[in-house]
Amino acid sequence: MSLNTFGHLFRFTTWGESHGPALGATVDGCPPGIALDEAMLQHWLDKRRPGQNKNTTQRNEPDAVRILSGIYEGQSTGTPIQLMIENTDQRSKDYGDIAQTFRPGHADITYHQKYGLRDPRGGGRSSARETAARVAAGGVARAALAALVPGVEIKGYMVAMGEMEIDRTRFDWDAIEGNDFWIPDAAAAPEWEAYLQKLRKDHNSVGAVVEVVARGVPAGLGAPVYGKLDTDLAAAMMSINAVKGVEIGEGMAAARLTGTDNADEIFMGEAGPEYGSNHAGGILGGISTGQEVVVRFAVKPTSSILSPRRSIRIDGTPIEVVTKGRHDPCVGIRAVPVAEAMMACVILDHLLLHRGQVGDGPRGQIG
Amino acid sequence: MSLNTFGHLFRFTTWGESHGPALGATVDGCPPGIALDEAMLQHWLDKRRPGQNKNTTQRNEPDAVRILSGIYEGQSTGTPIQLMIENTDQRSKDYGDIAQTFRPGHADITYHQKYGLRDPRGGGRSSARETAARVAAGGVARAALAALVPGVEIKGYMVAMGEMEIDRTRFDWDAIEGNDFWIPDAAAAPEWEAYLQKLRKDHNSVGAVVEVVARGVPAGLGAPVYGKLDTDLAAAMMSINAVKGVEIGEGMAAARLTGTDNADEIFMGEAGPEYGSNHAGGILGGISTGQEVVVRFAVKPTSSILSPRRSIRIDGTPIEVVTKGRHDPCVGIRAVPVAEAMMACVILDHLLLHRGQVGDGPRGQIG
Amino acid sequence: MSLNTFGHLFRFTTWGESHGPALGATVDGCPPGIALDEAMLQHWLDKRRPGQNKNTTQRNEPDAVRILSGIYEGQSTGTPIQLMIENTDQRSKDYGDIAQTFRPGHADITYHQKYGLRDPRGGGRSSARETAARVAAGGVARAALAALVPGVEIKGYMVAMGEMEIDRTRFDWDAIEGNDFWIPDAAAAPEWEAYLQKLRKDHNSVGAVVEVVARGVPAGLGAPVYGKLDTDLAAAMMSINAVKGVEIGEGMAAARLTGTDNADEIFMGEAGPEYGSNHAGGILGGISTGQEVVVRFAVKPTSSILSPRRSIRIDGTPIEVVTKGRHDPCVGIRAVPVAEAMMACVILDHLLLHRGQVGDGPRGQIG
Amino acid sequence: MSLNTFGHLFRFTTWGESHGPALGATVDGCPPGIALDEAMLQHWLDKRRPGQNKNTTQRNEPDAVRILSGIYEGQSTGTPIQLMIENTDQRSKDYGDIAQTFRPGHADITYHQKYGLRDPRGGGRSSARETAARVAAGGVARAALAALVPGVEIKGYMVAMGEMEIDRTRFDWDAIEGNDFWIPDAAAAPEWEAYLQKLRKDHNSVGAVVEVVARGVPAGLGAPVYGKLDTDLAAAMMSINAVKGVEIGEGMAAARLTGTDNADEIFMGEAGPEYGSNHAGGILGGISTGQEVVVRFAVKPTSSILSPRRSIRIDGTPIEVVTKGRHDPCVGIRAVPVAEAMMACVILDHLLLHRGQVGDGPRGQIG
Repeated sequence: MSLNTFGHLFRFTTWGESHGPALGATVDGCPPGIALDEAMLQHWLDKRRPGQNKNTTQRNEPDAVRILSGIYEGQSTGTPIQLMIENTDQRSKDYGDIAQTFRPGHADITYHQKYGLRDPRGGGRSSARETAARVAAGGVARAALAALVPGVEIKGYMVAMGEMEIDRTRFDWDAIEGNDFWIPDAAAAPEWEAYLQKLRKDHNSVGAVVEVVARGVPAGLGAPVYGKLDTDLAAAMMSINAVKGVEIGEGMAAARLTGTDNADEIFMGEAGPEYGSNHAGGILGGISTGQEVVVRFAVKPTSSILSPRRSIRIDGTPIEVVTKGRHDPCVGIRAVPVAEAMMACVILDHLLLHRGQVGDGPRGQIG
Repeated sequence: MSLNTFGHLFRFTTWGESHGPALGATVDGCPPGIALDEAMLQHWLDKRRPGQNKNTTQRNEPDAVRILSGIYEGQSTGTPIQLMIENTDQRSKDYGDIAQTFRPGHADITYHQKYGLRDPRGGGRSSARETAARVAAGGVARAALAALVPGVEIKGYMVAMGEMEIDRTRFDWDAIEGNDFWIPDAAAAPEWEAYLQKLRKDHNSVGAVVEVVARGVPAGLGAPVYGKLDTDLAAAMMSINAVKGVEIGEGMAAARLTGTDNADEIFMGEAGPEYGSNHAGGILGGISTGQEVVVRFAVKPTSSILSPRRSIRIDGTPIEVVTKGRHDPCVGIRAVPVAEAMMACVILDHLLLHRGQVGDGPRGQIG
Repeated sequence: MSLNTFGHLFRFTTWGESHGPALGATVDGCPPGIALDEAMLQHWLDKRRPGQNKNTTQRNEPDAVRILSGIYEGQSTGTPIQLMIENTDQRSKDYGDIAQTFRPGHADITYHQKYGLRDPRGGGRSSARETAARVAAGGVARAALAALVPGVEIKGYMVAMGEMEIDRTRFDWDAIEGNDFWIPDAAAAPEWEAYLQKLRKDHNSVGAVVEVVARGVPAGLGAPVYGKLDTDLAAAMMSINAVKGVEIGEGMAAARLTGTDNADEIFMGEAGPEYGSNHAGGILGGISTGQEVVVRFAVKPTSSILSPRRSIRIDGTPIEVVTKGRHDPCVGIRAVPVAEAMMACVILDHLLLHRGQVGDGPRGQIG
Repeated sequence: MSLNTFGHLFRFTTWGESHGPALGATVDGCPPGIALDEAMLQHWLDKRRPGQNKNTTQRNEPDAVRILSGIYEGQSTGTPIQLMIENTDQRSKDYGDIAQTFRPGHADITYHQKYGLRDPRGGGRSSARETAARVAAGGVARAALAALVPGVEIKGYMVAMGEMEIDRTRFDWDAIEGNDFWIPDAAAAPEWEAYLQKLRKDHNSVGAVVEVVARGVPAGLGAPVYGKLDTDLAAAMMSINAVKGVEIGEGMAAARLTGTDNADEIFMGEAGPEYGSNHAGGILGGISTGQEVVVRFAVKPTSSILSPRRSIRIDGTPIEVVTKGRHDPCVGIRAVPVAEAMMACVILDHLLLHRGQVGDGPRGQIG
């Protein structure tokens, strides 16, 4: 059962509410002997942290992660690793009028209908703060991948935001870390900045498309039929707050292609099979080909906006909701490190699954 | 672990290769006392059957399903239900030259790399014939849903095929069952027909977009965070052969919307909450709202085409692959009943999960 | 979820009722490339088969197993392996008066209370015939173990039956296969025979204790805390029909020992650590030590006896139950091959789990 | 996967090492709306706490539990409940010479062989302190049971300790809480006391048998075949440190009974079926009968004794091990609250599983 647990062999369970004492992740199945410490995980959390980026929410959480178990003298022991992040900057008063109201586009109403009660502060368990725990777990996965499969490189970036869209002919992998939007095109950043500030002034928000790529993934990962690599990646990304669509390779556009256009032809290279293209996004039949694994997903616009929206209270009476407090005009930006974390977790999980059922490395030689 | 098993409480494991003696599904967790017989399941399989529709592959399998366990005097006993479909029309000779060759766009190469060997006949386990087992399992789910939540209605249809796209202003729910494309627009069918025949003559194939809708789903289904309803639906559809993208509600288009455009406002109706729109696709925070659950996915063009494609043999030598035999110019058509089956399985699973953890019906009253 | 599925990475789901068309096991997670055919599995089933041994029930089922998937040219492909055994000798009329009655000591009443209905013929799903499917699955596990860890040897035998008890000073491993009781003492067999025939004439039954040992198991298998090797072995044996107690090593007798008596001291041998004794049964902290893994369990006396027992009908009226038909005076005898099968499945599962999380072989060198 | 997770729908993952900063349990699947607070859980932990009972180890841990998530205004929200217990009294210097040595009877050697490294302080993850986390999780289960099935009563007690054995003719349910051994016979306590003190002076230890009973369990709980109630109870108890045998009802003694002796005859009572005896321990075919569920297990003698034992170091050189520090002459005493906690968790889990698959309450009426 995996209601709050993600993964098969390498798995983590997140816990914690937005305004509770803490949140975290219980990571189980990490291979032993992996060098790991709090600083390594903090690195990835700092990338995600609210306030780090002036375009994201101004809640000022240090997101300091502690490792409470599973490590001895700087190495994983193979036992569960408890990661905890204490909440420090919860301004409860920002949410005081929420308890009896359902904010449109949020999970308030469905959590109420399902459970009969909910922690209304900051969205409770449905808050995007849960993703901090994922990023911490992803840090563990990255450490293990670095040890087991050096050469794996994972990077996420935005490719669209509302009306903005990157120009793929100017794609620059090295520009990603250098701008606030994590877009692979430094020159476009100012235009995106202006667009976003206008939205903020208009009390509005916008959606985004995030792409995350993994290079250096060995061929042979994925467990058909229901543990396919793309199935788990789809689940991984769809589980992120506000995600409404997930694509692998060509994605939805594959529907418009013909077989002749879509086929990735195969050649024999020096080191092994090579492909003439990558419409497949690095996955065939649910198993990695050794090419770049390309996943893309859409984040809907934030529903916490300052423009009034019509809704109802718990007692059924109508109300106009204006969500005060701190909000993101575009949550998509913060989804980038989360997507990277999920990619890392899925790849590590499948590495372990593969070597569990089949043994180390791809079995089938070619050439 | 769920490598070949899908679902949490209501779960099924599919088995079988395209050219093996049989294939099937082991369905576990079906509630007891559900009226069930082979004819009920056969109904759904006949919708899927190759040959039934002149636009799909001409392999002539009766797909006759047998129930080998779990039923007594016409009712489910709550014990595992074994569904078996014997393969009868495997023309092995059509695939004779495949064993040493990797067909581009197929899982041949990745199965070889992962397992070291594969059943090459008809794609073996990676064949779309696996979906027949899903449709059978979906039949069991539908029977249970009919008993437990009368009023649930599930229907799938195509919305795009290559360059063809439905006109949503002419959307006719009742037209779906009446044409070979399962499109909600009877008048458009001849145009789609002509388009497809041209592709067949050109030895080519095309992708498609399938949409599947569930009406009458109670609010409150879904198990955040990693058992969200949309997470499981994304996994369900992405696990279908040739699927490359999955969307919920607005899907990828949500990225281009602003918060004001995307918000589904809430009103109080006579029977409970109602919504002014359904950009969310019936799911908020991973839990059903009671609105139509709308899922959409893209199927890539069939890779089995008669046009030559460059590839390699197992020994690494180059070869041009021309896949003879029987092929679909558009596999998307046959994905429609499969999507319905998966939708049924996911909804039933979540109904059981909800009543397991929480009890019957949504707990939280409104109004 | 594992209601009808056993195992983590190497897992099987059994299905089928005693008097249904067939029963079987869906085996998932078998490593690829394992030589496997029906004859290999039939070997283990023939050991179990009713009628094979004149002391067990006279129902004459050939228990012919068919492999319906997962094998290609004599090797496992890594995809699910469907094993099916058709029922041929169901004498329904033997059970005609059972449908409205609850046989004491059987699951009739609890299945009725839980599910509201049951297949009453031969115990339906609660029948010991389900164990035939386990033996078939165990055959797959044994084949994989033979390939992956040559040197693993698994053997089960009876150590007690009612008043009979083996003399461990005369323990002869090679005698086990040579008598109808699978006891490690050929000379004692006639006495056991006489004892059992008397029980049969008296229309009675008796319980038994079965011990199963695995030699050559590498150290390091087991996944603390809740996937401990002994935890999974306890679950494996307790899940067998009629089992009421499970022991590892000293078992219940460990309670009467003192620390000085119970300690297995450790020495350094040529090949690695060696132990002065094996009170632990080959498992410490839930992980194998490399010593013999020793598991023992008690089977209660068959509840299907010809002596009258007081019970009730579904309508609550009292009745005396005399179970006619074919019955075992001691089901414990047939549990021996079942125990071996479960031991094989658990060891293989843990081999795969270990190499999945940790890699091949024990990681920690000693000496 | 459930390596460090126990349970199906109601499930918990424990984490933490004996000498790490903290340990705890991540509890997932608790029904919403259950009244819960730290004091309720602390009640059960105080029963277990070292130092509470002068016969158990003198490590002075307050075992103060904190609830970090999953609760709002005193009620469970249905989201994960993180329970944390900080370690405060770790005397690392007591274990200084352990790091290079394997203590006989402990998991030191197997953890080293499996993982390649281990936290040697106090046994690390293999320490019995992990059971504190179980007791906390059990507290949550008890709260849920109290709300969902008032009338369920769970109680554990010792029935044997080394040479001591209770006299069942003097069984007094109400005496259990009133003596340091939790035995149901107040008059026998002084004799047990004297026996244990002698063992302590002799630097030795002794095993024990613990029995735990659940009353008021509804009929119909348990999920055959591999999720049987007794299967999960066996796994639950066997997973506790130092347990070597588990019994249900008659347990191992069932092997010596005949069918006529062992049969629990059935009668019709006013409220429903009643039984003339309870050899079955409240479980038939893996499903509860409504009778007392009786589970019993043996705990081996503590291996941490002050008498010297021969062993080896990691480098293979021989050594005599004398474990200094604080030790239990009988860990069985502390297993009593742990057994109760596990019983509570399993029963709640199966209550949820039953209502999930089948609906509320037993389905099948009798009479």
